[in-house]
Amino acid sequence: VVFDNEDATKTAKVQISMKYDEKNKQFAILVAQMNNVPVLLPQQDQKVSVRVAILPSSESTSCLFRTSLMEASDNLIYNELFCVAIPYSVLRQKTLRIDVCALNKYHLEECLGGAQISLAETCKSGERSTRWYNLLSYKYLQAQSKN
Amino acid sequence: VVFDNEDATKTAKVQISMKYDEKNKQFAILVAQMNNVPVLLPQQDQKVSVRVAILPSSESTSCLFRTSLMEASDNLIYNELFCVAIPYSVLRQKTLRIDVCALNKYHLEECLGGAQISLAETCKSGERSTRWYNLLSYKYLQAQSKN
Repeated sequence: VVFDNEDATKTAKVQISMKYDEKNKQFAILVAQMNNVPVLLPQQDQKVSVRVAILPSSESTSCLFRTSLMEASDNLIYNELFCVAIPYSVLRQKTLRIDVCALNKYHLEECLGGAQISLAETCKSGERSTRWYNLLSYKYLQAQSKN
Repeated sequence: VVFDNEDATKTAKVQISMKYDEKNKQFAILVAQMNNVPVLLPQQDQKVSVRVAILPSSESTSCLFRTSLMEASDNLIYNELFCVAIPYSVLRQKTLRIDVCALNKYHLEECLGGAQISLAETCKSGERSTRWYNLLSYKYLQAQSKN
């Protein structure tokens, strides 16, 4: 398999910061910022938010969070923090699903792309891990599955 | 949001090792092993393989690899290595999609669960990164999206 250099198109990315506080059994997820969101957008000037889900979700409680909506631009600063009370052994079985959602003209939420982050090796020392994650476009994935 | 301890059910996991060799512009993906695969399986005694895709894929070349099929059991050792010639700048735009696939009774490939690994922060020093990733069950995700 050979990729060439022309493949290096702009990719939408999200920066997520995570920290597990063992003393208080609290998992904190900070949605910091996004880059290159317009490459995911069907139309210009849509408002987008970031949806965070902890999966598989617990039956008894909701595990879904949303940032506020912002006008799409090349760099979007959210800096919104979400906290979950969860034992460390449970957390390590979970996967974080990050979705970029826009409101369509019918005011319905439409997911444009996403990333998945396995929490199997989340560190429990209370140290913050901050990383950029590429967002896969759902339009692209749908087109792929039809081939 | 509060999770309780009972949530700590067994999760299927895959261990993946990755290494980027900058001198030869080669990305190596080792599918090392899987744990707890039976929790994903609709039937007992199915054979499963691991499918690895580099997404978004290049138009000109295939970016899909498959391990051999093995009888499902609690611990499956694959140790199969796949190599891709890819510039570092291109690699960092990609996402690795790992799927566990079984052959159904019609001999069609059926995906049971998967993980996604963003390559945005892949290290280029040639150091090997070996980690366990939780596998999300597709049955679970489909049931969720119907709610």
